[in-house]
This record gives sequence, structure tokens and C-alpha cells, in this order.
Amino acid sequence: MKIEARLNELGYVLPPLVKGPTGVKLPFDFVVVRGDVAFISGHSPQAADGTIAGPLGKVGVDLTVEQGYHAAQLTALSILGSLQRELGDLDRITGWRRVFGMVNCLPDFQQHPNVINGFSDLILAVFGPHIGRHTRSAVGMASLPFGIPVEIEAEVSID
Amino acid sequence: MKIEARLNELGYVLPPLVKGPTGVKLPFDFVVVRGDVAFISGHSPQAADGTIAGPLGKVGVDLTVEQGYHAAQLTALSILGSLQRELGDLDRITGWRRVFGMVNCLPDFQQHPNVINGFSDLILAVFGPHIGRHTRSAVGMASLPFGIPVEIEAEVSID
Amino acid sequence: MKIEARLNELGYVLPPLVKGPTGVKLPFDFVVVRGDVAFISGHSPQAADGTIAGPLGKVGVDLTVEQGYHAAQLTALSILGSLQRELGDLDRITGWRRVFGMVNCLPDFQQHPNVINGFSDLILAVFGPHIGRHTRSAVGMASLPFGIPVEIEAEVSID
Repeated sequence: MKIEARLNELGYVLPPLVKGPTGVKLPFDFVVVRGDVAFISGHSPQAADGTIAGPLGKVGVDLTVEQGYHAAQLTALSILGSLQRELGDLDRITGWRRVFGMVNCLPDFQQHPNVINGFSDLILAVFGPHIGRHTRSAVGMASLPFGIPVEIEAEVSID
Repeated sequence: MKIEARLNELGYVLPPLVKGPTGVKLPFDFVVVRGDVAFISGHSPQAADGTIAGPLGKVGVDLTVEQGYHAAQLTALSILGSLQRELGDLDRITGWRRVFGMVNCLPDFQQHPNVINGFSDLILAVFGPHIGRHTRSAVGMASLPFGIPVEIEAEVSID
Repeated sequence: MKIEARLNELGYVLPPLVKGPTGVKLPFDFVVVRGDVAFISGHSPQAADGTIAGPLGKVGVDLTVEQGYHAAQLTALSILGSLQRELGDLDRITGWRRVFGMVNCLPDFQQHPNVINGFSDLILAVFGPHIGRHTRSAVGMASLPFGIPVEIEAEVSID
């Protein structure tokens, strides 16, 4: 349980199962394992009680870049929670693969990397430079479900 | 031919090869198999004659959410048509992997899941909860080719 | 070194390591190999000195579709440079898998395929119809980092 120990050491707590807004059907899985790959659905920033964490809205308008960075950190923790529930043990992750970081923003926004760095920095701090190594896109979306400021989809190799 | 039988049972007919707009070059393949994975290009809603199905435009403006849901259903059938032509038999699919659902919409749109559910609900109805199980992102794009309202990209495991 | 010979024959020169704008942290890798797959981060058009190539801005406003096509070509060369540095030899690529082509544009833009064809045409010219064969999405983003007009993410199979 090295990764869990590392999360504790860094003071991070993984949130419970995502509670979507009432009345919205989400007919997919947050993590699906096929062979030695765990696919990860687009996740949002998640509060300690499982609900979507605010502030909601567009980074650069409703949130500062620093608040966007924090939202990306919360999204990383949400993903780690989903991976732990599906894999049983985060030490089964042998390597991060691709990370697709989506920022809810306006057409003139240009600081997407500074937002999604909240995700990358946390993953590298927890998993280290070998297992945590990943490719990434950080891009601007017209809109995201429920007005979430950040959504991140990813893949990891597992044993 | 279990999946074909199931499609018949549900009353679904797979469309022929996509006919893009005249004069537009599309120098890529709709499905490419590499090892035990079939990669699926971004597909659009497709009419029975192979052309792009209308209505075109932005969900929330030119289409209702219900029309967007129907467009996502038609996109699922377009993808199944492409998979059948490339794989020969849809029973070769051993598991859905990732689904990336893109909605053509304005910056204030928030109901992306309700649109892309048209895809997920159909895939789960046809393939069942084990093979049909998938991860998903449902997000808002600034624009899509030819003004299509929905575009979906995916991956499946095959044997 | 067949692919390098082919690049020479076509007159293409691969750019050096990407030099991002000063002061921006990019804590991820441009290519990551996991098993027999090389994952490729979102790349931008790159100039001969390693910096981001202009013109910047939105295709359809600040760039014509033809300039967007050229930007997609430069993005292909940027990706091939990253692959060569990571793999040592581009002949290790046994097949292109998925290509995700993102165009920085306004809500009414519809010619995304004509832009991303700059990427697909170059890859097919260099790798041929078997290894170069790929799936693709070509879609419109609200915005991209630093105002780049095109960003492309991809995956290749390697031996």
C-alpha cells in the first residue's frame, strides 16, 4: 500500500463515489478495466461528501487560474478514488498513459496548462517520475456538464 | 451472430458506408484494428442512405436535448455499421473501452450527459452490461465539421 | 532508417525539442511508451528553432483554412521529432492508431477536416497506407494554449 501511504503523507483524502446532480442518469462506469489497461471516464472536481465541488463556471471568468489549478487537483483526487474502488489497491498501477485535460473557458483563454498542472503536479508527487510519467493535452471546451470548470479523462497501465 | 440478432430484435438497421459532403477529402479510416483493439474515428449521425442525418446545428439552439439524444443514437448505429464492415462480425467485440462524446453547443449548455446517453443507452441495450460497459466523457465543443450536432469517438477490445 | 530516408526525400526536416513560452511549466512528457504503445501529447505547430510557429489565433479568422492546413503539417513534423527523440528510430512504428485533431476556431466554423488533412496527408505520404493508416476526429475547440491554431494528440503501435 505504498501509494496510499504516500497520499496520507501528503495529506490527501480520497472522496467517496461521485454523487451527480439529482435526476441525471449517468449510464457508464467511472473506471473500466480491459486487459492491462484501466480506462478512466471524464471526472470533475469532487467535494469531500461526493458531490461536485464548486466554484462552478468558466476559468478566467468565474474562477481564477489558481482556482482552476485547485479544481484540477480535486479532479485528480476524484480519479484516484474511482481507481481505488475499481482496482482495490492503487499499487496495481504500473504507469500513467494519456491524460486529457479539459478547461471550461472562453475563446480568448490561453492558460490551460497552468490549470491542468494541478492534476499533473499531484500525480507526479504521488506516483513519482516513472509510474507518474504521462502524456497530456490541456485544451479549452465550449462548455462542460453542470458548469464544471475542469474535466479530466485518462488511462493507466495496471498489473 | 448474437449482436446482429439483438439489433434486429430491437428494430435497429445499420447504415451503409458514410457519404461525406461532396468535395471534402477524408483521408483516414473509420475503424482501424491494431492488435486486439479496434479504434473508431469520430462519427456523426447518419441517415439510412449513408449521408449525414439532420437536423444540423447546435444542441440547445437548433436541436432540443431530445433531438440531440436521437442524434447520439444514430451515431451509435453509424459506428456499429463501420465496425461490422471492418470486423466482419460484431460478436468479435469482447468489450467496449472508452467513449468520447462531443456535443456541438454554446458556452452556457450544461446537459451534455442527457445527449450522449442516446449512445450509451443503445450500446448497453445491444451489448449488455458486461461487454457494453464503457467509460465516457460528454463535453461541449465550439463547433463540429459540417455543423453536425454530435460526434463520438471510441475504442473496443476484440478477439 | 526507411522513414528518415522518406522524410529526406520529401524535403521534411524535424524540429528540435519544443521550446514553450518562458515561465510556463509543462510537467508532462511529449511521448510516453507503455508496453507496445507510444502515447503522444497534444503538440502544436513548431518552427525550425523549436519555438511555437505562427501565425497564432483562430482558423477562419486569424488564419485561412490553407494556413490551418500548413499548421497541421508543422504539427505532424513536431510529433515526428518527439517520436524520434523518444524511440531512437521512427522505423519502430508499426502502425498509427488514433489521431485527435483540435482546431482553434469560432462556433460557426465547419471546415475542420480540411485543416487536419494537413496532418493526415503528411503521415500517409511518409508512412504509406498500411503503417500510416489511422482513425481520426477533427473538431473545434473554444480555445487552445498560447493561442495556437491547431493541437494534435495521437497514439502509435511500436515494436
